[in-house]
Order: sequence, then C-alpha cells, then structure tokens
Amino acid sequence: MTSMDELPLRPELRGRTPYGAPQVPATHRLNTNENPHPLPDELLADLGTALGHAALELNRYPDRDARDLRADLAAYLSRSAGTAIEPAQVWAANGSNEVLQQILQAFGGAGRTALGFTPSYSMHPIISAGTGTGWVDGHRREDFTIDRAAAVAQLREVAPDVVFVTSPNNPTGTAVPLETIEELYAATAGILVVDEAYAEFARTGTPSALTLLPGRPRLIVSRTMSKAFGMAGLRLGYLAADAAVVDALQLVRLPYHLSSLTQAAARAALAHTDALLATVDAVREERDRIVAALPAMGLTSVPSDANFVLFGRFADAPAAWQALLDRGVLVRDVGLPGWLRVTAGTAAETDAFLTALGEVARDQRISLGD
Amino acid sequence: MTSMDELPLRPELRGRTPYGAPQVPATHRLNTNENPHPLPDELLADLGTALGHAALELNRYPDRDARDLRADLAAYLSRSAGTAIEPAQVWAANGSNEVLQQILQAFGGAGRTALGFTPSYSMHPIISAGTGTGWVDGHRREDFTIDRAAAVAQLREVAPDVVFVTSPNNPTGTAVPLETIEELYAATAGILVVDEAYAEFARTGTPSALTLLPGRPRLIVSRTMSKAFGMAGLRLGYLAADAAVVDALQLVRLPYHLSSLTQAAARAALAHTDALLATVDAVREERDRIVAALPAMGLTSVPSDANFVLFGRFADAPAAWQALLDRGVLVRDVGLPGWLRVTAGTAAETDAFLTALGEVARDQRISLGD
Repeated sequence: MTSMDELPLRPELRGRTPYGAPQVPATHRLNTNENPHPLPDELLADLGTALGHAALELNRYPDRDARDLRADLAAYLSRSAGTAIEPAQVWAANGSNEVLQQILQAFGGAGRTALGFTPSYSMHPIISAGTGTGWVDGHRREDFTIDRAAAVAQLREVAPDVVFVTSPNNPTGTAVPLETIEELYAATAGILVVDEAYAEFARTGTPSALTLLPGRPRLIVSRTMSKAFGMAGLRLGYLAADAAVVDALQLVRLPYHLSSLTQAAARAALAHTDALLATVDAVREERDRIVAALPAMGLTSVPSDANFVLFGRFADAPAAWQALLDRGVLVRDVGLPGWLRVTAGTAAETDAFLTALGEVARDQRISLGD
Repeated sequence: MTSMDELPLRPELRGRTPYGAPQVPATHRLNTNENPHPLPDELLADLGTALGHAALELNRYPDRDARDLRADLAAYLSRSAGTAIEPAQVWAANGSNEVLQQILQAFGGAGRTALGFTPSYSMHPIISAGTGTGWVDGHRREDFTIDRAAAVAQLREVAPDVVFVTSPNNPTGTAVPLETIEELYAATAGILVVDEAYAEFARTGTPSALTLLPGRPRLIVSRTMSKAFGMAGLRLGYLAADAAVVDALQLVRLPYHLSSLTQAAARAALAHTDALLATVDAVREERDRIVAALPAMGLTSVPSDANFVLFGRFADAPAAWQALLDRGVLVRDVGLPGWLRVTAGTAAETDAFLTALGEVARDQRISLGD
C-alpha cells in the first residue's frame, strides 16, 4: 500500500482530509440544507421528455456556452429581482462550487488574496486554497453580523483581490443589508462575490444584490438550483455579473463543462419555477417554527433568512450532535463552539427534530452554556 | 460596456481568447472526434429508466464519492486491459478535462512545472495555465514520434512535477510504446499521466498503460466516455492509478462534483459496453479507408491508432480548412503548419470527406507542399 505521503503532493495539502458533511445514514437528514420536497409530478414528466431528447444526441458535445440555459436563467433572475439581467451577464457551472472556482482562477490564484467574513460557507477558503489563492478571515461581531465600518477598514488594510459576502449567510442564516454590500464594493478594488445560494428563502421584501449590478462591473452575485429549487442532485450553480466578468470566466472554464443532460434538466426545471418555488413558503414556516420553539428548551438561535437555523448554545455541541443522531436526526456540526445547524424541511421533520432536541436539551450530559 | 481589461484579471490571462473548436454549422462535423453513431435503442430505453429513477431523488445531493460508478468503471477497465483494477483505484469527473485539472491542483500548481510532448492535446498546457502550473514543451521527432533517449534526457534536465503522454496521441494519432512509458516513468520523480482518451481505437494488440500500474504509484492513466463510448454529451472522464493518487485527488475535488444524472447515465451506458464499443470496429475501418485514399490525391497522413487522421501537407492549411467547410465538411485546423485533422465516422461521412478533399486537393489555390 502506497500512502499519500509517498506521492509528490503539493506541500500545503499534506495532512488534510477531504471536505464534506459526513454521509451517515439517518432517518431525518437535516445536515446539508437540501429541500426535502420531491419534484412536482408535472416536472418529473417534463424531465423525462427533456432528458430523453438530450440522450438522442448524447454522442455529440454539448453547447459549450450553454446559451439557451443562460437565457432561461437570465429570465428567471430578471423576473425575481425586478431588474433586467441579460443572458450575456449569466454564467453557469456544475454547482456554485465550480462557479466560485472559476472566479478564483480568473481573479485570484497564486500571489493573490481572498477575504471572507467567517464563519461563512466553508468552501470559500477551501476553493481559495485549491486555486492557490491566499485567504484572510474577515471579522464579524459576536452576534455574527458584519460591522460595516470595521469591514471597510479591513478591506482597505488587506486589499484583497476577491471578497466573499454570503447573504443570507451560511451557517448563521443572517442576510446582509444592501448598504453593507455597497460600502464593501466601494472599499475594494477587487471582485466582490455575493453568494446568494439561499436568497429565495429570505424574508419577503429582502432585496437581492442583483439590484446593485448596474454600474458595478466588479460585483458578482452567485446562485444555485440546489436549495430553493430543490435540485441538489443536478449540480447547477450560476451567477450574474457584468458581461465582461462572464467573458473573463470563459478564459478559465473547462470546455464543455456542462453536460447535455445538465443543461436539458435545468431548462426543464426552470420552466416549472413557480411549482418548484411553491415549497419555499412551507420551508420558511418550518424554519420560523423551529426558531419559535427553541426558547422553551432553554436554547436560542441566530435570526435566519435561509432554510436552516443555527441553534444553541451547548456546552458540548459535538455531544449534542451525536445525541440527536442517536435519535435518528442528523444535523450539522459546523465547528462553531456551542452551536449546531439544522435544515428546515417538512413539518414531520420539524416535529421529529423538536422532539429529539427536547430530549437532548434535558439530558444531563449536555448542560446549557451561557 | 465594461471591457475585460478594466477588471482585476490575472495578468497572464490578459489578451487570451477562450479555448475551443469553432462551433460552426456544417453538414458533416468531423472536427471534434465525436462518435457519429447514435446510442443503441436498448441503451436509450435503459437511460430513460435510470434517469427517471435518479430524478425522483434529484432534491438530494449525489453520492460525493460516486462509489457505484467507480466500481462499474473498474470492472470495465479490468476486463478490457486484462489486469485487475480496484474501485479504489478509479476516479471520475466531468470530462477528462476536470480529471486533469484535479491532477494538476494536487500535484502541479504555482511553483511547479508540467511537461508534455507537443503537438498533443491542447488542453494539457491550457489546464496547466489555469492551475498556475508552469509548462515546458517536450520534444518530438519530425514524424511526431517520441525519441525515447531525448525524452528521458529532457525529463532529467527539466525535472517536471507532472508529465503528460497522450497515447494514441491527439492530434497525430500515434500510439506510444509501453517501453517508452516505462522509461519516462523511471526518469521522473513526478506524476506521469498517460492520457488514453482514444485507447479503444488502437490497433488490435496495442497494450494499455493500465498494465503498467502495479508497482508504479506515480503513474495515472486517464480515459473518457466521450470517444469510443460515443457519449461526448455526458461529460464523463475517469482515471486509474494507485489508490493513494485517488485519495490525493479527493483533497482538491469539489464536493458533489458529479451530478446524480451523470452517475446514473454513465452506469446505464457501462451496462451496454459491448453494444457501444461495437461501433469501434466500423470507425477503425473508416479511419483506414481515409488513410488509404490520401496518396492518390498527393496527400499523406500520420499513422493513426485513434478515430481521426492527421492529413496533409498543404501549402496553406487554413485555406484548405475553409475550402472543405465551403463543401459542407468541417475538419480541425490544429495549428500545425501544413496539416489538418479529420474525425473518422460513418461510411457516408468518409465518402463526403474524400469527395470534398479530392476537389480541394486539385484546387489551384491550395498547392501541395513538399
């Protein structure tokens, strides 16, 4: 058996372990912010047709520029954000992870620096490392909000090439006010990526950073079909930005990166946008029900605009995680001392989670923190 | 309109244009080495079933480690190469481009160097650039074969971290003897990637570098389902290597990089391997027919073990390319002075190509070279 250490691996990778939530069996999987609602029947029928049609040409390479899909995504964004987004402003890849990787290949990389306000989506620093981009932790307040003045000062001091702002933030759920994004944009000469993977779950009236795109060529808003659209298995992430940004990403994208099946399935899903997003209200209700039930257990949460809740505090969060798993409920230990993250899904999942949490919160092995 | 130059793009990307064969309309598309044979009907039926089944769980993330698919790929490789390949030795991604990118992220990158024997697959230097890896052109003889002694000397001198050998080579078609691969492996302390995208088209009895894997932990053999399997639209590339190499790639792979649809479709196709590869013999016959027809036109070719032929020589290859396109035949100008590359496909495509080429070769505007 050869070990990895005997290979000429890059030195910074030595001793690392692969990223990813534990894929362990559990009755209720509330750990990766999936949408538990299955796809509507009428979409399943259309998917079958669309994929069958794509299969007939599967011996041919796909459209390298995914033009039809980008037009459909632009139409969706224009409608949902109330601001005109052109197809040339949209780019798509295999999950927002690949979108972010392409951004870092074009605008980050060796000798350059990215900054994100941690705790946030843990792939931001990991993809930065994978592209040789240096990483600087941005500061947040104790309550996980971003202190605008402090953040602006930090951007001026660090001068990062790429800045990540996740809104609503993962794992805390907090939406970032547009005023903050405007000030951060003005404070950097680099690319500002607003990761809006959970935007569709935000409370009504929360504006998207898409409305800030005009006149801001260094602003990128990334989205995904994995969450509100309920299509995590499809792996379709996308972004909107100035068309020049899309031109730049085409210099680093791998040719034919999006399969014919992915393009066909995403287009079929976008034709059923209303039916797919109909589950969003139900998920938000479950989120708010979780938040409302916590105080009676002596627990608290961070205000959430997403489809998950960061809850706590526990003296020993890993023990609470295990105790919940022992009761069939898999949540996520995101490594924040005292906190755990739970995905809001169906009413039955909320019931199961709250029942298990009631037992765990009472359990003597897990005393409540401050 | 913002231009790309106004963005904080990496300096080495400035002035570059996106890679890719021109996607222009043509009656006969013989430019990207696709397999023109449509998928067998029984596979289309099974694909429908497999994709429909996957769609039912499309709201869930796919298996991050693609375990079932890797087991199927290992079984195929074991059978075709006559050497045992374990699932833990196999890795898959969205096209061999992504496989190669992951290899360079793990073993190349900033401050490291890759070497490939040009002319070869043009994505090798491009993906090297995209990952910040330096690039050195390896030498070939005038007839495009690799001079073993000269190559060994160059590897010793350059000491690259990653070496690419394409066999059969693209765009020249030449297979590389295993003895050469053995000597190159012994001459480098880096990773040796044998890109066998076209291996299934090699002349009967041509052994695969898969047979060299035992005892060579720095050897990687990459393959694709885009060519012989006729599934370019699926985007499924894969590799076999020591299991430690696969462990290393999992440190840089994007989590959930392979969609549920991709995994399901690839498995359905692998269940029909014999039917899919039944087109390989027909394609080889057309390739040999092209090669045989060239001398009568005053043209020549490079010996080919692939599903394409590098033919020439033309005084003005770009003009010959245009003249063929004007006659409805799209071939590839790979940038080698005097040469063009044509994909071998159906008998009707060969007929159309040879007819058009006969006219072009006679045309006074394109005088034949030496």
